[in-house]
Amino acid sequence: MDRTLAADAIRETGKTVEVAGWVHRIRDLGGVVFVVIRDRSGRLQLVTDKEFPLNVESVIRARGRIKENEKAPGGAEMELESYDVLAEAAPDLPVAVNQDPESLGLDVILDNRMISLRNPKILSIFRVQATCVRAFGDFFRSEGFTEIKTSKIIGGGSEGGTNLFSMDYFGKTAYLAQSPQLYKQTMVASGLERVFEIGHAYRAEKHETPRHINEYVSLDIEMGFIESEAPLMEIERRFMAYLFETVRSENAADLEIWGADVPDPSACDSIPIISHDEAKKLVKSETGQRALEINPEAERVLCDWAEREHGIAMVFVNEFPRRKRPFYTYPQGQKTMSFDLLFRGLEITTGGRRINEYPMLLEAVSKFGMTIEELGSYGDVFKYGCPPHGGFAIGLERITQKILGLQNIKEATLFPRDRKRVSP
Amino acid sequence: MDRTLAADAIRETGKTVEVAGWVHRIRDLGGVVFVVIRDRSGRLQLVTDKEFPLNVESVIRARGRIKENEKAPGGAEMELESYDVLAEAAPDLPVAVNQDPESLGLDVILDNRMISLRNPKILSIFRVQATCVRAFGDFFRSEGFTEIKTSKIIGGGSEGGTNLFSMDYFGKTAYLAQSPQLYKQTMVASGLERVFEIGHAYRAEKHETPRHINEYVSLDIEMGFIESEAPLMEIERRFMAYLFETVRSENAADLEIWGADVPDPSACDSIPIISHDEAKKLVKSETGQRALEINPEAERVLCDWAEREHGIAMVFVNEFPRRKRPFYTYPQGQKTMSFDLLFRGLEITTGGRRINEYPMLLEAVSKFGMTIEELGSYGDVFKYGCPPHGGFAIGLERITQKILGLQNIKEATLFPRDRKRVSP
Repeated sequence: MDRTLAADAIRETGKTVEVAGWVHRIRDLGGVVFVVIRDRSGRLQLVTDKEFPLNVESVIRARGRIKENEKAPGGAEMELESYDVLAEAAPDLPVAVNQDPESLGLDVILDNRMISLRNPKILSIFRVQATCVRAFGDFFRSEGFTEIKTSKIIGGGSEGGTNLFSMDYFGKTAYLAQSPQLYKQTMVASGLERVFEIGHAYRAEKHETPRHINEYVSLDIEMGFIESEAPLMEIERRFMAYLFETVRSENAADLEIWGADVPDPSACDSIPIISHDEAKKLVKSETGQRALEINPEAERVLCDWAEREHGIAMVFVNEFPRRKRPFYTYPQGQKTMSFDLLFRGLEITTGGRRINEYPMLLEAVSKFGMTIEELGSYGDVFKYGCPPHGGFAIGLERITQKILGLQNIKEATLFPRDRKRVSP
Repeated sequence: MDRTLAADAIRETGKTVEVAGWVHRIRDLGGVVFVVIRDRSGRLQLVTDKEFPLNVESVIRARGRIKENEKAPGGAEMELESYDVLAEAAPDLPVAVNQDPESLGLDVILDNRMISLRNPKILSIFRVQATCVRAFGDFFRSEGFTEIKTSKIIGGGSEGGTNLFSMDYFGKTAYLAQSPQLYKQTMVASGLERVFEIGHAYRAEKHETPRHINEYVSLDIEMGFIESEAPLMEIERRFMAYLFETVRSENAADLEIWGADVPDPSACDSIPIISHDEAKKLVKSETGQRALEINPEAERVLCDWAEREHGIAMVFVNEFPRRKRPFYTYPQGQKTMSFDLLFRGLEITTGGRRINEYPMLLEAVSKFGMTIEELGSYGDVFKYGCPPHGGFAIGLERITQKILGLQNIKEATLFPRDRKRVSP
């Protein structure tokens, strides 16, 4: 007999079908037992008047007749006729799968990650994340971008060399890349012009905050033949509208579990663009406090302001001072052609135009106390003709976190890595 | 003026347009100069009677009238009126961009990777690779699989602990994952049931062969509720047909550059399945030599046999002996429910059903001289109910290599890592 998914049972009313899944909940009312099973599509209630001697999380294959029941999940239930046990679960489940995880602390959730991921509310986070990955690829492919996969093991630092994890590479020291920055620029100059990469990035930063993890997935793009950061903000604005639209249509149930919603896609047209200087002034006028930099508190203030004044809790901040940006950022006097995108109080993107002219690069490298030699053959990209270009990166876990309103970025990471956590 | 792509110039005959790209070739015939420029879409010939004092690989923006010219690339050329220099290239280009790379050795190509990637023939490899990545995601999503992103930094070994790169993780030793194996099994058991991951995998293997690299992209799937390796081979067969169909329609020009073609998609129905024992017998009857194992030479012999007898150079080999497979492989007597897929003489996939029953896992772990404790919380996945499941992984660089008929896997890797090479 072919397997029927729980969500499709309602369409099989009156028929005898086979379902399979995890025992999610057992309610023994004495004389009648309700067993809810869970599969990838949803849940189905089985009803039996026999004993049901399994523990929750056991995996079974069950057969029976489907009948309508408005009160059951999905509007249908199965009159259980027979079942096979595919895998028995031990009784001492370390963390509840069938309860709201809100009552559990984050450490309990992460210490028991192999089991806590089964909790439908927790698991729903990663359905939303999968949509973000897919939407990113689909959107940028439709804009003529080619997907690339670049090495994460590098001989030297790509952005100044701090905060790198080091590793033993056949007896020599190598590092884990903190971004695909230099490689994506290389691939623009290779002639692909428009590239994107979905890959891990590593930061050996010691701080412990709700917005940092030491390994994350970076959604990177880089594009040629642009001469300021404006086209980058424009394409990101359109991507965000597409992403919100896609999440709304694909993940309605997941948003509902979290009581979350994405911004109205059409409101992405209204995301304001303010300069770094204006942003600091705004923070001062909103809070009465002088802002020396755009810190997490300032990011929240700016997004609240944008929501109030522009109807969307997102804001582009551009024209960052040169000293706040990496050496490769295209200068404009003391400022740069760079930007951040803030969303619901969190920086989710950093981007900008990059230096493409070789003499300007040599000057910038020296200004930042580096030498062109230490960048290895990266310099060749510019010595031999590189078009004007720029790009940005979106943090996958951050955008997932903010879409669902999660408190901590680790909740939006399957197997998060922090200073103390390197397993599971 | 909006930029016109080289490939679209033919549609602008008679009009004055602007193009932009790299100076690919300059032919000065004295009195008339032909300048071919290259952009992401193709090439366009510019004609001028003025001096053209730039080096190849300089980047320009050029304006002029388009006229038909059957002999020019793309069937059109531009009467150059004016141009701006976006980036000047130095004259001492380290490696030719506008010649067939066949004359260059692999080391020269890789030592000058930043520039050799500009060679249209070399770059075309990565357009095919991008199609492989996209086809993989599209196909498995359409089959109900959810994309996951799992950590590449692990506290211990996932498949026995050999050949792992070690790294310094805040003063402790951690490792780079050699596969997402345990995580993808966890995600099947989480309730997603069907998952795929596109991610880097690391093998600290010292051998130097045309088929090995130390960092590669693994196209992984894992699916629940299957009870042998047969459904895995079946879904891979259908994926291969989809991949070949997609590459044929998206990358016709790239295949042509390499004089390559993919197998007929419909021939994937004919991929034979032979057991490991049968494979050894076949090698013996084909070569007269006794085969102790399915080594690279045997893989070539088997694919030649499949092409001759079944019309496609691919073969599934299943029923591997238990000692040749990792501890988590589902046993069947002395054999296992596992398989490899060979394509044009190279193993491109390893897969199989995995052990899902906790008592059987405990037995297997002990048989392989391990303890359940050293697997950390991986054991919990099975202790608390895991459905029967299995999966496989395809090496992205290997499949790219074999589609195009490349001699060495490093050619199919943007920035390959081998024992000696950790940059660029």
